[in-house]
Amino acid sequence: MNKGELTRQRIVAASAPIFNQRGFAGASMQDILEAAGLEKGGLYRHFASKEELSVAAFKYSLQLVTEARAAGASNSPGAIPRLIHIVHQFTTVPSPMPGGCPIMNTAIDADDTQPALRALANDAIQAWKSRLARIVAAGIRTGEIASGTSPRRIANLIVATLEGSIMISRLEGNRNAMRDAEDSLSAVLSALAASPRPAQPVHNAAQC
Amino acid sequence: MNKGELTRQRIVAASAPIFNQRGFAGASMQDILEAAGLEKGGLYRHFASKEELSVAAFKYSLQLVTEARAAGASNSPGAIPRLIHIVHQFTTVPSPMPGGCPIMNTAIDADDTQPALRALANDAIQAWKSRLARIVAAGIRTGEIASGTSPRRIANLIVATLEGSIMISRLEGNRNAMRDAEDSLSAVLSALAASPRPAQPVHNAAQC
Repeated sequence: MNKGELTRQRIVAASAPIFNQRGFAGASMQDILEAAGLEKGGLYRHFASKEELSVAAFKYSLQLVTEARAAGASNSPGAIPRLIHIVHQFTTVPSPMPGGCPIMNTAIDADDTQPALRALANDAIQAWKSRLARIVAAGIRTGEIASGTSPRRIANLIVATLEGSIMISRLEGNRNAMRDAEDSLSAVLSALAASPRPAQPVHNAAQC
Repeated sequence: MNKGELTRQRIVAASAPIFNQRGFAGASMQDILEAAGLEKGGLYRHFASKEELSVAAFKYSLQLVTEARAAGASNSPGAIPRLIHIVHQFTTVPSPMPGGCPIMNTAIDADDTQPALRALANDAIQAWKSRLARIVAAGIRTGEIASGTSPRRIANLIVATLEGSIMISRLEGNRNAMRDAEDSLSAVLSALAASPRPAQPVHNAAQC
């Protein structure tokens, strides 16, 4: 990285928690300049607008939380344990970005006002849902998960419950709602298991 | 209502969708004045500050959406049908307030920045969770719901899933996530039913 890229990276890292905590309209350029230790001109050499900076900041926040929560996921054997592990990671690994989940914050903040941020939040939700739905579909193919299961419905349930429980936990100032979400989702996911096939009656040729 | 109260009410009604769509920082007093058809002085005769107006606007939005979704709830017989009915109302009755759920919008917008709004959003979540938990507890008392059920966990699951699914539906621009939430929650709630007691062996005295 050259000096320009380092400065750009410093601005993004300094602005990300400000955007995540205060939203697009609430994040003042003055506070961002102070956090990055820059003059106004120094910032606008790297970003043409607040919109452009907010997009870079969202991508940075998203990468940080995605990496923090992805640890170890692929080691779980079987679709249902993998899904339960993903839920466990989400409900127990603290977000490395102050202000809560950047996807939800950006989704709520930008849905009526900032189309570029809204599109990025939607991309993040779609990518997350697709990863979950692919695990469910793979579990159906191997016979681990009951064949009538809808991968999309399970993906929607996991994402909605986790995001909603972050909102409740942040309001309440404790982790009860996150723990309850893990317990509820684990129960629902465990119940997706295909029933073992009824044992076939054994015809013993010797007894015929 | 006298003229002053009518004007105050008009300001609140005009500002509520602006706060709900753009958040506290994004709602400009200029847009609110224009929507209410007032001069700046006219507004500050009724509200000392933007904070005071935003609190009145949140209470107004909350009352509107609560009333819209409460219709018919108490007519359902039994705890499980009542809970399923509440979920159905939430996922099918469109919000009368533009911008999505005021509780979630305010929770996300205000959690790091506006303590008075944050406290009101928390009050609304607590009241909603208490109503749901009381229905679960009543179902446990009557034997309709399995005795090991945690009323708090079910209340957290319903609120988290519904709020999270609004977020997804608004990003995706369709109602799929809301419909999936209704299907998933209905299945979970139906499964709360206490198993019928195993039939007691009938001792027929005449056969003794």
